[in-house]
Amino acid sequence: QSRHHFSAGIIGAPFSKGQPKRGVEQGPDVIRGAGLIQKLQKQGCAVKDYGDLHFPQVEDDDPVGGVKHVRAVGRANQRLSEAVKKAKTDGHCSVVLGGDHSLAIGSIHGHASAVRDLSVVWVDAHADINTPLTTSTGNMHGQPMSYLLRELVSKIPVLPNLSWLQPCLSARDLVYIGLRDMDPEESFILNLLEVKVFSMVQVDQLGVARVMEETCDYLTDKVKKPIHLSYDIDAIDPSVTPATGTPVVGGLTYREGVAIAEHLCQTGLLSAVDLVEVNPLLGPNPQAVQSTVHTAVDLLLACFGRRREGNPPSDYQLPEP
Amino acid sequence: QSRHHFSAGIIGAPFSKGQPKRGVEQGPDVIRGAGLIQKLQKQGCAVKDYGDLHFPQVEDDDPVGGVKHVRAVGRANQRLSEAVKKAKTDGHCSVVLGGDHSLAIGSIHGHASAVRDLSVVWVDAHADINTPLTTSTGNMHGQPMSYLLRELVSKIPVLPNLSWLQPCLSARDLVYIGLRDMDPEESFILNLLEVKVFSMVQVDQLGVARVMEETCDYLTDKVKKPIHLSYDIDAIDPSVTPATGTPVVGGLTYREGVAIAEHLCQTGLLSAVDLVEVNPLLGPNPQAVQSTVHTAVDLLLACFGRRREGNPPSDYQLPEP
Amino acid sequence: QSRHHFSAGIIGAPFSKGQPKRGVEQGPDVIRGAGLIQKLQKQGCAVKDYGDLHFPQVEDDDPVGGVKHVRAVGRANQRLSEAVKKAKTDGHCSVVLGGDHSLAIGSIHGHASAVRDLSVVWVDAHADINTPLTTSTGNMHGQPMSYLLRELVSKIPVLPNLSWLQPCLSARDLVYIGLRDMDPEESFILNLLEVKVFSMVQVDQLGVARVMEETCDYLTDKVKKPIHLSYDIDAIDPSVTPATGTPVVGGLTYREGVAIAEHLCQTGLLSAVDLVEVNPLLGPNPQAVQSTVHTAVDLLLACFGRRREGNPPSDYQLPEP
Ligand SMILES: [Mn+2]
Ligand SMILES: [Mn+2]
Ligand SMILES: [Mn+2]
Ligand SMILES: [Mn+2]
Ligand SMILES: [Mn+2]
Ligand SMILES: [Mn+2]
Repeated sequence: QSRHHFSAGIIGAPFSKGQPKRGVEQGPDVIRGAGLIQKLQKQGCAVKDYGDLHFPQVEDDDPVGGVKHVRAVGRANQRLSEAVKKAKTDGHCSVVLGGDHSLAIGSIHGHASAVRDLSVVWVDAHADINTPLTTSTGNMHGQPMSYLLRELVSKIPVLPNLSWLQPCLSARDLVYIGLRDMDPEESFILNLLEVKVFSMVQVDQLGVARVMEETCDYLTDKVKKPIHLSYDIDAIDPSVTPATGTPVVGGLTYREGVAIAEHLCQTGLLSAVDLVEVNPLLGPNPQAVQSTVHTAVDLLLACFGRRREGNPPSDYQLPEP
Repeated sequence: QSRHHFSAGIIGAPFSKGQPKRGVEQGPDVIRGAGLIQKLQKQGCAVKDYGDLHFPQVEDDDPVGGVKHVRAVGRANQRLSEAVKKAKTDGHCSVVLGGDHSLAIGSIHGHASAVRDLSVVWVDAHADINTPLTTSTGNMHGQPMSYLLRELVSKIPVLPNLSWLQPCLSARDLVYIGLRDMDPEESFILNLLEVKVFSMVQVDQLGVARVMEETCDYLTDKVKKPIHLSYDIDAIDPSVTPATGTPVVGGLTYREGVAIAEHLCQTGLLSAVDLVEVNPLLGPNPQAVQSTVHTAVDLLLACFGRRREGNPPSDYQLPEP
Repeated sequence: QSRHHFSAGIIGAPFSKGQPKRGVEQGPDVIRGAGLIQKLQKQGCAVKDYGDLHFPQVEDDDPVGGVKHVRAVGRANQRLSEAVKKAKTDGHCSVVLGGDHSLAIGSIHGHASAVRDLSVVWVDAHADINTPLTTSTGNMHGQPMSYLLRELVSKIPVLPNLSWLQPCLSARDLVYIGLRDMDPEESFILNLLEVKVFSMVQVDQLGVARVMEETCDYLTDKVKKPIHLSYDIDAIDPSVTPATGTPVVGGLTYREGVAIAEHLCQTGLLSAVDLVEVNPLLGPNPQAVQSTVHTAVDLLLACFGRRREGNPPSDYQLPEP
């Protein structure tokens, strides 16, 4: 039915300790409940469902230098890294259903363990690149990128339950899309490391089609590495996806959000996807939650071959009377 | 007051048997009720109101090969074809207020009967090009284009009350805008016939201004044929026009929808317009219905000369004290 | 913290007699209440708050030739002109919090008194350029530009309390952005004076980034004059900013609205800003008012250096463990 053969390895990651709000651990449930797996299969994608990870309670998890739940985040991501590595070695495109965005630590680490060298497209209102020493909130969902970048290794203190983690990404292999709310320290880091950023200013100036062209040109300049797409639902405008913990006005439209996923799908390089920060306990009303969840599902369907311009069957005979 | 002299022949078509939901037959009432005729006149457009067509009940209208209400749809469209032909021979730009989109059969047929050769711009979330043999729902509002295209004549079975209908459009003279939800069989047909399609992907990539330029270049390449605009209100995003039977997320913005109508108006070739699928019994609340209806009216006003950049009077003397 | 040093002189102008609806005089209160001053200071902008102007009741203010509250509007703007001139001579970028848009008379006059020659960027759904002799409503918030333009001086009758006012702007130095609802007479005037207009049609065709480039190229063609930005909140789409007296569908998105302010900020020429027509008594619900007010604040923050692409500190040392 489609030019590529798609295969998704789904991993539920009901984890919320990277931020303070109850509910984001229900993300895997509501995304599955909206029919993700059946819809993927219906569009011709093979699906292996690895179920939900279980994250045991971590005792004595007091803040470390102001950073909250370090031990729980460390342990959960170690577990997730193994699960993603397994899905990759099983031959799937890994799909992590969050949970909060601190899960990107384990997801990208596990992906890198399996494929060695990778690129990351991080779609988010936020850069999530505070270090444990620059964070003002102490929430680890605002820090994952700082642990992953080789260039920042000297800025990260030793933290409990994170000794297993080696930085596995170069700043040159990272592209941000959708940024519009950065701490000054994050902005400083992005400048310092010369990270490629398409903030909402660039999306406004170039349009999302050209942003995606430039993103892919930039990432596949020399080598075509596997692409890890880490999609924070708060990249999309809160008028569409309000059920999330840190909404920011002025986001991507539904169409822009889907176009990003469609474009990455068409590269044939998409190797892992995170869909994070869907929180069904937030949002002003049930329709708002539904809109958020359906958008999350549509983004994932677009990652696995759904095209708004149609998916014509290749082996079809038009019936005659 | 305007460069062209506009004249609209309004035909109400309160018909809903092309689909299963009650309410779309009230389209003509609510669109008139929002002041369409007065507003057209106020902007300097001559208006002839032909009133609403009456569609007598059709008895014994059981499904034919799974297709529902074939006889009612056939009879209603025969009646509509005559009315549109009359409006055209009276010298007006025909305006059909639906009703559901199965009415395009009679509207385009009647238009073609009067002007011979025409082009069609079909603005819709859907392609409405299933044949009676590919439809999965059996609803005729999803099939009108298959009856109208010469290239599909061998794929259409003989159906009761449709023997009057001869295909009157070539695939080369058809352009779709706004598509985002196609059945695989429809997608196959569009590919097979090499129909020009600007799906939402192309709207995203090119922007609506360039889509309209390319549409008009394509249609007026050799001959400047009269243009039939068939506008399904579900082309517009459901956040703007939710009161419709088959809404699909990710649609045209209000501005894009109006820009399409403005651009076609400026060609001077617009010869007939359908405005269909407004259903005032749907939508979450009264404001949603009002937004849908007002948008429908605004689309029609733009078809008859209203320009957001202003309509300066040519014969005016600025008063002095 | 930023490349320019910003300094804002805030003047509250709780005036509503330029239009008939109660509530717009509460604009300064709700915009301050949303934290404007603290947020400006937090982003490194110096702020001098001049407080709110007091506009004494004007007795015997019967309509003059159909124009309502001429004497009140005249007196209030005389007072405002002095206040803006003071803020300018104190060295600030003047910020007038309206109030209705008739206040642009005094704001632009006061600005011109201080800097001599200026340009105006008028962002609005409306042109507000009716003369006292063309207005159909008699509301002065639909007329301010006609009093300010040198080219229209012969069209303006003598009016009570307006003898202090000399036109201080040339049509060549004016750019409109966002227009979509013009009276035919206004449209005639804009054509007659060959005013540069980027209506929503042009915004659709060019995109807001190119609109701003062309705006700035046009205004700084020969001389780099100080820019007066007169921002009517109804320029933005009513889905975002509904709490205003004369909303018009099809407006600027939040992102486009902010991009306009960001771009003008980056010219280094922004010398005065009006933010008018926020009416907290309108809008369908409290969230709608909140959205309107927050957008107004965000527009002002963008005028004073906030950038969605980040504001990296220049003198920062990334902490190490
Ligand atoms: Mn985020
Ligand atoms: Mn994030
Ligand atoms: Mn449709
Ligand atoms: Mn249709
Ligand atoms: Mn206005
Ligand atoms: Mn105004």
